[in-house]
Amino acid sequence: MSQIIKAGLVGVTGYTGMELARLMTHHSSMELVRATSRSEAGKTLADIYPFLHRLPLGDLVITQPDPVDLANECDVVFLAVPHKTAMEIASALLDEGVKVVDLSADFRINDKATYEEWYEVEHTRSELLSEAVYGLPELYLDEIMGARLIANPGCYPTSSILGLAPALGAGIIETDNIVIDAKSGTSGAGRGAKVGTLFCEVADSFKAYSLPRHRHTPEIEQEISKIAGTDMTVSFNTHLLPIDRGILSTIYTKLTADTSVEEVHAMYTEFYADKPFVRVLPQGQLPETRFVRGTVFCDINVVVDPRTGRLVILSAIDNLCRGASGQALMNANLICGLDVDEGIPMAPMMP
Amino acid sequence: MSQIIKAGLVGVTGYTGMELARLMTHHSSMELVRATSRSEAGKTLADIYPFLHRLPLGDLVITQPDPVDLANECDVVFLAVPHKTAMEIASALLDEGVKVVDLSADFRINDKATYEEWYEVEHTRSELLSEAVYGLPELYLDEIMGARLIANPGCYPTSSILGLAPALGAGIIETDNIVIDAKSGTSGAGRGAKVGTLFCEVADSFKAYSLPRHRHTPEIEQEISKIAGTDMTVSFNTHLLPIDRGILSTIYTKLTADTSVEEVHAMYTEFYADKPFVRVLPQGQLPETRFVRGTVFCDINVVVDPRTGRLVILSAIDNLCRGASGQALMNANLICGLDVDEGIPMAPMMP
Amino acid sequence: MSQIIKAGLVGVTGYTGMELARLMTHHSSMELVRATSRSEAGKTLADIYPFLHRLPLGDLVITQPDPVDLANECDVVFLAVPHKTAMEIASALLDEGVKVVDLSADFRINDKATYEEWYEVEHTRSELLSEAVYGLPELYLDEIMGARLIANPGCYPTSSILGLAPALGAGIIETDNIVIDAKSGTSGAGRGAKVGTLFCEVADSFKAYSLPRHRHTPEIEQEISKIAGTDMTVSFNTHLLPIDRGILSTIYTKLTADTSVEEVHAMYTEFYADKPFVRVLPQGQLPETRFVRGTVFCDINVVVDPRTGRLVILSAIDNLCRGASGQALMNANLICGLDVDEGIPMAPMMP
Amino acid sequence: MSQIIKAGLVGVTGYTGMELARLMTHHSSMELVRATSRSEAGKTLADIYPFLHRLPLGDLVITQPDPVDLANECDVVFLAVPHKTAMEIASALLDEGVKVVDLSADFRINDKATYEEWYEVEHTRSELLSEAVYGLPELYLDEIMGARLIANPGCYPTSSILGLAPALGAGIIETDNIVIDAKSGTSGAGRGAKVGTLFCEVADSFKAYSLPRHRHTPEIEQEISKIAGTDMTVSFNTHLLPIDRGILSTIYTKLTADTSVEEVHAMYTEFYADKPFVRVLPQGQLPETRFVRGTVFCDINVVVDPRTGRLVILSAIDNLCRGASGQALMNANLICGLDVDEGIPMAPMMP
Repeated sequence: MSQIIKAGLVGVTGYTGMELARLMTHHSSMELVRATSRSEAGKTLADIYPFLHRLPLGDLVITQPDPVDLANECDVVFLAVPHKTAMEIASALLDEGVKVVDLSADFRINDKATYEEWYEVEHTRSELLSEAVYGLPELYLDEIMGARLIANPGCYPTSSILGLAPALGAGIIETDNIVIDAKSGTSGAGRGAKVGTLFCEVADSFKAYSLPRHRHTPEIEQEISKIAGTDMTVSFNTHLLPIDRGILSTIYTKLTADTSVEEVHAMYTEFYADKPFVRVLPQGQLPETRFVRGTVFCDINVVVDPRTGRLVILSAIDNLCRGASGQALMNANLICGLDVDEGIPMAPMMP
Repeated sequence: MSQIIKAGLVGVTGYTGMELARLMTHHSSMELVRATSRSEAGKTLADIYPFLHRLPLGDLVITQPDPVDLANECDVVFLAVPHKTAMEIASALLDEGVKVVDLSADFRINDKATYEEWYEVEHTRSELLSEAVYGLPELYLDEIMGARLIANPGCYPTSSILGLAPALGAGIIETDNIVIDAKSGTSGAGRGAKVGTLFCEVADSFKAYSLPRHRHTPEIEQEISKIAGTDMTVSFNTHLLPIDRGILSTIYTKLTADTSVEEVHAMYTEFYADKPFVRVLPQGQLPETRFVRGTVFCDINVVVDPRTGRLVILSAIDNLCRGASGQALMNANLICGLDVDEGIPMAPMMP
Repeated sequence: MSQIIKAGLVGVTGYTGMELARLMTHHSSMELVRATSRSEAGKTLADIYPFLHRLPLGDLVITQPDPVDLANECDVVFLAVPHKTAMEIASALLDEGVKVVDLSADFRINDKATYEEWYEVEHTRSELLSEAVYGLPELYLDEIMGARLIANPGCYPTSSILGLAPALGAGIIETDNIVIDAKSGTSGAGRGAKVGTLFCEVADSFKAYSLPRHRHTPEIEQEISKIAGTDMTVSFNTHLLPIDRGILSTIYTKLTADTSVEEVHAMYTEFYADKPFVRVLPQGQLPETRFVRGTVFCDINVVVDPRTGRLVILSAIDNLCRGASGQALMNANLICGLDVDEGIPMAPMMP
Repeated sequence: MSQIIKAGLVGVTGYTGMELARLMTHHSSMELVRATSRSEAGKTLADIYPFLHRLPLGDLVITQPDPVDLANECDVVFLAVPHKTAMEIASALLDEGVKVVDLSADFRINDKATYEEWYEVEHTRSELLSEAVYGLPELYLDEIMGARLIANPGCYPTSSILGLAPALGAGIIETDNIVIDAKSGTSGAGRGAKVGTLFCEVADSFKAYSLPRHRHTPEIEQEISKIAGTDMTVSFNTHLLPIDRGILSTIYTKLTADTSVEEVHAMYTEFYADKPFVRVLPQGQLPETRFVRGTVFCDINVVVDPRTGRLVILSAIDNLCRGASGQALMNANLICGLDVDEGIPMAPMMP
């Protein structure tokens, strides 16, 4: 691929925008040519992100978000703005002929009513719902490659769906007795100024939040229901970790029959054998969020407890990278005809 | 109470010993007169714990553990040593006529065979098992007050049992479908020098460990089975938090009948109405480990998810204080005829 | 003292207000009867601070700040509001006959012009400057006991002044060659919602800030100049630590003559022999912020480097406790005729 | 460069070995073909570092350190072993004709007696001292390119020397009045199992250590003396940060003449204009360790305090990357004829 793909980013000031700037720094086939922010327009990226000094991206001047300008300059545009805002911009960009990777939730839920129930806003671009492709490459690789609108998956759903897919696909667990206990680093709460995410409120503490109705619930249920071939309801529960990045989902399921951990592990290993970004760790090595820090890996392992007949699935991702911007870049690569892993970091930051 | 109770501490160099030193600093009716350590004997407490300088306890000279000396000088002795070691010392101390609060697991499991299966050592003092009282004041207040040997509860069991007791006692949840997802601060892993608990291995990360056979499982099952009146098996799963102190247990249960969160909350509030150290938070306020940091409070709240028919119970304690040394001091107070809360801190360290 | 002192707190929602609530929970001779907040009036303290549930203070209803009401109900009032606001309220309260401990900077600087230069607001109550007593008990014990207006010292100045006092008093260091490199926990930055103090901006990082003109500079210079008997200018430099609480000041000075570390250490030990809240640690033990966490101790040690002729002084406090609310309570105790240490915690939270 | 350089790593189990494994994962012109460890030989890298699963490096089998084998297989060998051990292996490898980048201190100090005084061991390979090149590319680029033995600089010296070089080179500061107050993340303390670096001993705390004789002192003095053209003695003081990675050095100097911050800033910017890995930040933006996390950047800024006549220099690096393995890779690139930045990450992990 000798032609450089030109990309735009709407909403550069949040953590997903920051992460995309990090990733694009190392991409050799795609260049960020537009970064927009209503509040920071006119500054360079290095002005707001000093870590970009002396890097090419640092000199990029932030602009006001303008669909026509973005369409003129870009082959693909990432939307890193809140839901509801995203649907409007996505629609305008598609009208101008640009491909869109939307990091918000606006096009993830296939059913308009379900979206509106959980997000409590009207979906004004529902005509695009059937076209949008859910951007989880392990499940929808072909559809992604032909899409012009990607609904980039949520962070929690990415870890939950990848964790459950093999077991549900094989039908070895009960579909009505699943509990997901998910824990996320604080970057998942965004970069808005709020007392609740101040250092002194989060450090040295741990809590659950949004129980029992976190908005990622219908997204998880939609996708795992497709895999299982039956409508599923799950208990999905979220917690806030005093770390920057990382999600670990501990998923509790009930085996339908006596199955050894060796059998389940082999099944998982086989399922992901040709999916290089999902790593089923060797038996006995449990995922840790640091093992995936800064990467798009999803690390998985399984535990079988014969005492309770339960299969416990551990699934770890970096919520900012695989759970947002890294996966968005994988999707952008795919819809632009590049290899999925171009510009994608493989080695985590350890320690 | 004008007479000062004299206390001894066997094993002062770990985090539970350190925590007991902190608590005793403020106790007006009990004085630490012996602190032992094989490796540090001869030094003062302030030599190994500089934070005790200019405090009375700082001048206490550490001695070798000697049951006869401890019995001569102390009314009650705390054992903060590993399991197996504890049973030997406890027995020797009881023979000398001293009351014992054992922070290890050696006398928590009523059944010798169960202990030996999970802890993989022989129980050589099983004749004491029937006498030992499980030191959870909310459940065994009267027995504790008359005991000479207290099996101080484990940290995870304390939070799990207190969280489950009202629901199990009222029979509103299924007894064969309980999952405990517990997360603990790193002090729970002890003060031994190990690579796995180095700062750079724990900070900025999160993981599960000891799945599916953490040793606190039989302790939890024993106690909740008594409450429920039936033999119970639970799925108990532990995780390591990058914080110093604190346990949050998220307990997933299935309601046997349609019950509103208001009903469950009222039931919990009533259950603990006369138990001042368990706080059922107002509806909508979920426990956070920082709210109990440095105290013996167990903070609890309940969530009902009508979609799944589940009751989710959140239970937070400080693993070092309520989960170990603070509860040990409550027990020591009780067996020495003092008020349960003497020397016990009420206000957490915030932030 | 059988009579309970009644205290008020203006500004309960910040970290200093939160800390004062913690401290008052254990005070047996002083009771918080008023806590004010413009934004939270009408709620109870436990509504905004769930850690106060089931504690007497938790039921206190927050009121609007009203000097007349405060004067009617309180013997002493703590001001935990921003500078400039504080001077107005202090004046009104004094007019009503109430004693005031002001945690802001408004009455710390004796010279009106200096205050106005560094704080960039007009001092509208400068007639009170000569009356206000700088509330550092180790230096001004007698004046504090007779005062009705206490200027509670800043956090950085407390650690710096206590660290320098013995050496300056003895004249063993050059007065024109002092560098203070101070590092503070993030609670010192306040509880306002700002991007710069979000968890993900502070955790895993370290930086200097406010160089070279931190507002605590004139306060330090004023006090050490008095001790040295000459006008002094110091290089005072501040850094932000990814911890909740704690200040460590590393103070670089030049010895005027060849002096051994033993001599300097003996001088420091002697200087603070009758000051129980300053601990000159034994030689070889350097202060750590955790050793003073949650207490009013100032831990100090000295290092002499014969290669450079420098005396390096290490001085650690808890910025919220000794550096703000704990020292305020010491001052309130003193102006109310109580022992300085009533309600003051002695044992730090370790770990 | 179509030929792949083959590299070996002696000592893979520490943090510098871990970091080198991370960096080599992305290197397209150099391949790690040997990794040695006495304790872990026989395992694969992924066995001890699960984050390397499904990466090519993960399958590399760890071997015993054997100079002949290393020489047969490698073009260049990195030594990530303790000092004293390193000198022996380096000598053996050089005898076999392999180029060596030594991350220990063994060849950094030109003078044998000085080395032995500070490191308290005999230097048994002092004949190599004159040949070894101090691997700071900004100062010794030409020498490095022709070397076969690189003394890779210490972490603290890297940040200190780069911070001081422009000012000392221009002669604008006093050479006998310099204080370096350096703060390092905990990975700098190594991966050995020690109580002092356990999570619960380091988190939420801050302290100074090794005062006043940290072993990096003579290394700093040697290099800055060369720059200044006069023998220099500095006060060098180290502190432990509760973060994984990062060093911030705050360097206090005295200007010899009245100089504005604009002049100094311009001088620094000019000095590093053609050194792409040193970033003199725009005036007003102070370095933060997170801005360089995971990179080889050294971020610098300067502050002039007219009140005290001081120039304060802030210098930040990642102690593991620029301060150890990243700089080692720069050096290996240079001595192997590759571009200095091959395989070197440019974008930091933010947050």
